[in-house]
Amino acid sequence: MSATGPSNWGRWGAEDERGAANLFTPEKVLGALRHPTAGQVYELGIEVNRNAPVGGERVPPMHFMTHDGGDFAALGRDDWGTADDYVVLATQGTTHVDGLAHMWYGGQLYNGFSYREVRSSGAARLGLEKLGGLVTVAHLLDFTDRIGPEPGEITADDVDALFADRGVRPAPGDGLLFRTGWMEHRLRGPVDESTFPVVAPDFADWLATNDIALIGADNIAVEATGRRGVLPPLHRVVIRDLGLVMLELLHLREPAEAGVHSGLLVVAPLRISRGVGSPVNPLLIA
Amino acid sequence: MSATGPSNWGRWGAEDERGAANLFTPEKVLGALRHPTAGQVYELGIEVNRNAPVGGERVPPMHFMTHDGGDFAALGRDDWGTADDYVVLATQGTTHVDGLAHMWYGGQLYNGFSYREVRSSGAARLGLEKLGGLVTVAHLLDFTDRIGPEPGEITADDVDALFADRGVRPAPGDGLLFRTGWMEHRLRGPVDESTFPVVAPDFADWLATNDIALIGADNIAVEATGRRGVLPPLHRVVIRDLGLVMLELLHLREPAEAGVHSGLLVVAPLRISRGVGSPVNPLLIA
Amino acid sequence: MSATGPSNWGRWGAEDERGAANLFTPEKVLGALRHPTAGQVYELGIEVNRNAPVGGERVPPMHFMTHDGGDFAALGRDDWGTADDYVVLATQGTTHVDGLAHMWYGGQLYNGFSYREVRSSGAARLGLEKLGGLVTVAHLLDFTDRIGPEPGEITADDVDALFADRGVRPAPGDGLLFRTGWMEHRLRGPVDESTFPVVAPDFADWLATNDIALIGADNIAVEATGRRGVLPPLHRVVIRDLGLVMLELLHLREPAEAGVHSGLLVVAPLRISRGVGSPVNPLLIA
Amino acid sequence: MSATGPSNWGRWGAEDERGAANLFTPEKVLGALRHPTAGQVYELGIEVNRNAPVGGERVPPMHFMTHDGGDFAALGRDDWGTADDYVVLATQGTTHVDGLAHMWYGGQLYNGFSYREVRSSGAARLGLEKLGGLVTVAHLLDFTDRIGPEPGEITADDVDALFADRGVRPAPGDGLLFRTGWMEHRLRGPVDESTFPVVAPDFADWLATNDIALIGADNIAVEATGRRGVLPPLHRVVIRDLGLVMLELLHLREPAEAGVHSGLLVVAPLRISRGVGSPVNPLLIA
Repeated sequence: MSATGPSNWGRWGAEDERGAANLFTPEKVLGALRHPTAGQVYELGIEVNRNAPVGGERVPPMHFMTHDGGDFAALGRDDWGTADDYVVLATQGTTHVDGLAHMWYGGQLYNGFSYREVRSSGAARLGLEKLGGLVTVAHLLDFTDRIGPEPGEITADDVDALFADRGVRPAPGDGLLFRTGWMEHRLRGPVDESTFPVVAPDFADWLATNDIALIGADNIAVEATGRRGVLPPLHRVVIRDLGLVMLELLHLREPAEAGVHSGLLVVAPLRISRGVGSPVNPLLIA
Repeated sequence: MSATGPSNWGRWGAEDERGAANLFTPEKVLGALRHPTAGQVYELGIEVNRNAPVGGERVPPMHFMTHDGGDFAALGRDDWGTADDYVVLATQGTTHVDGLAHMWYGGQLYNGFSYREVRSSGAARLGLEKLGGLVTVAHLLDFTDRIGPEPGEITADDVDALFADRGVRPAPGDGLLFRTGWMEHRLRGPVDESTFPVVAPDFADWLATNDIALIGADNIAVEATGRRGVLPPLHRVVIRDLGLVMLELLHLREPAEAGVHSGLLVVAPLRISRGVGSPVNPLLIA
Repeated sequence: MSATGPSNWGRWGAEDERGAANLFTPEKVLGALRHPTAGQVYELGIEVNRNAPVGGERVPPMHFMTHDGGDFAALGRDDWGTADDYVVLATQGTTHVDGLAHMWYGGQLYNGFSYREVRSSGAARLGLEKLGGLVTVAHLLDFTDRIGPEPGEITADDVDALFADRGVRPAPGDGLLFRTGWMEHRLRGPVDESTFPVVAPDFADWLATNDIALIGADNIAVEATGRRGVLPPLHRVVIRDLGLVMLELLHLREPAEAGVHSGLLVVAPLRISRGVGSPVNPLLIA
Repeated sequence: MSATGPSNWGRWGAEDERGAANLFTPEKVLGALRHPTAGQVYELGIEVNRNAPVGGERVPPMHFMTHDGGDFAALGRDDWGTADDYVVLATQGTTHVDGLAHMWYGGQLYNGFSYREVRSSGAARLGLEKLGGLVTVAHLLDFTDRIGPEPGEITADDVDALFADRGVRPAPGDGLLFRTGWMEHRLRGPVDESTFPVVAPDFADWLATNDIALIGADNIAVEATGRRGVLPPLHRVVIRDLGLVMLELLHLREPAEAGVHSGLLVVAPLRISRGVGSPVNPLLIA
């Protein structure tokens, strides 16, 4: 079942498994590399640990040492040694990129592949190992002034107004990073989700019209969560119809407070074979 | 016990936990961003899966799905659904960056911190969450013409000769990526390690003299492995004395075969709290 | 599709999820408890560690400490402390019991449940949490005299001859434990599987005729392994048609060498919710 | 530092690593097997799943399928198939036995071994692989009538009174299972721990005097939890001085409601090499 609204199916060929990451052409990449003027590198990933604010039933990341300084201390071997570690983690249990096989409707994944390609062995189509490095210009859109009892949804008009204010427009292939303020509050403890703005469900049209390649936010799902039994409406279009890159659980306070409006965004998903998500530490370079 | 040879201890302050990553200054970053001319993005990470050529006792990465298309097929719910996954992985069990707490001697880690800071709870000093994004110029040094029964060690003279041949010299803060040919052979099956070149143990002096910030290779340890009961001599100086970034298990065939000699290298370690290593997918942009 | 041969479907009701474990009635249990005369307790479980001889693609058990004596030593806290650990393990990656949802044919599990009940969330039917404690009399059948280049399959005639030799017959609800010699050789290193006897594929008829409740062996699958693309013929009947308990990767040397022919067998599967297998340490009490 | 109070150090030899499990002699075992009169088998293990009421920082058990019915459904292979699973679990994250290396004071574990024997590679001394099968008579002591705002601690006098009431005394090597009522309330949701009785800290003397081999309860730690920075006083003596077996997170409702006062207890710890705890499903047979 193809999309009733905007769609990128077939745009990069019937066999395409990268989606809007195809917009990161050599020209686009070269242009993005010229964007920074300060050389300041911001990490947008939260720390990978037990305190990560995961969504749904996911378990926060676990960390185990297989050998460490303590072992050598116990043995009285104070000279030399090595340390090694393991992590057990939900790929979406920290700052992450959604894979294109993360969700589907009408029985089809992005570009028409069958949802039956995604089994216990992972995603035979649209796996993370095919996404590639992501390099583009990203705009940081700060809506933290909305935090409060009635924060409302962030609409196309809101975004247009913000860009008008800045006197710029996003170019095709650019990314948008929404700061809602949720993350820094949540890292300090439980928060009432309804007091932070989220991106409106129908914002997908704006993304398609402006040919945006990537959308991210500093919350669990960019859009509102919690309606069980319903596919999140923005994800539905963004991932499955448009094949866009989604980044979630970003940490955007630092660049936002530094007044960064846009920068070079570099995201390097782990090439998890048949994966449907990857932990990442996106870099925003201003 | 401080180093008897070259050392970066104290160079960035007594409390420094980033080591040579400090060389990636805003000026260095801006310069590196200007380096690419083609806009081609090469992924240097191997796929994260059970076939990863891990070193030592490490278990290759495991991948589990917590829900997938199969579940929906079994339920006859052919409309919509979502998929989610976990990974269990040794941080050094795929392409990775060594953390500065990965090894020590004389009872001290880089910059003089006690090895006792590294316990089951991880590295209280020099943890991965402190390393930051890595952005610099990297030189790809191809020594695959050495593959054979007596490949020899790659020495300072070899590297000087190669740079002379290219008519360039690495700048302070640059990175070196050694291609030995091991990885592509190993991904196809077991190989005799002794038929591939490795970096000589005393190459550390050259690294210090040229103020190199990062060294990587397409094999397990850059240098020779397998001498149990001895701290690898290159690691010893590179990590503990100089605080350099080490990248291991790189996949360098693609850029090497495309004739890339150098490029912008971007590495974004996961911010694993107290971690001593991180899986990464380094991007080399030419 | 019901069985063409012997079957226990419906025998304990249409909703039964315990299979032949129902044969462990209070009378059977009381009788079994009276069996031992020596009070000797033998552990039939191998050690749970990285050397476990797992079958198929399974990863041997992993063990991680979250805190240990080393940590306290490193901190110079020599007085008191605690240690804690985790395991990551394939439920069939050490001595284990097969759950009744472990395999199926004709689209149906034991007792006619649909194979579609087994999804990423586990087995909604026949899960390990429903199997219960297993208490019965078990006979130890030692065929290690067969080890050699042509060990042959262990047939009904072989088993009858062995029991005739002993002057006993197994009672309904009893268990059989086959010692082939494979385990002790395998724990010392790789072995040629074809030099050890295995139970013949058509032994299932004998099991049904004698109303045996449990069958186990000191190898990976009781029967021969390795024919990919074919459901193991003995498992097919034993698990799916008869609902018997299967124990695999047993360690039987000790009781066999002590001359134990039979004993009280107690197996306590972990109540893994919706599990399809459980690691166990079966106890044979003589 | 040896104990100031009762101690079993040296009682079974200087190299002993089983502690009070040595009390389960062949005679004791044979006697215990004669105890049951009903043949009823009660499982004392809770289900192993995400809802397990773990203590401290532990993560409840995780369960992953590596293949399942859904995969075959997705492929349209409705005939035959197999399912397999993994668990990731804290050994103390469900019903479990404490290993003798779980805690120490005075720098020494049970029987005088150094706490430095417990490192990232596990417990070189007193590991779970050495504990062996546990078979004895256990008494179920129900104190659920104490549930309420001031439940008080269960003292030696309380236990003596209960046994007097029953007209029996525990024999040397017997086990005690305390039902406080905590578990069944906790499985239904969060509970106020202070409304359930716990075993008094000084109950260890009574245990030593009566030569009890095993103590368990249906709560996290038998005794009160939550005093950070202090070694739990009962554990201190029970595990380290006396070498007793401790069972925690038991589920005792069923036998208690059936009026069971005592029974044959069989516990088969997984032989986790160098482990400091093991998940178990203890069986109480009445």
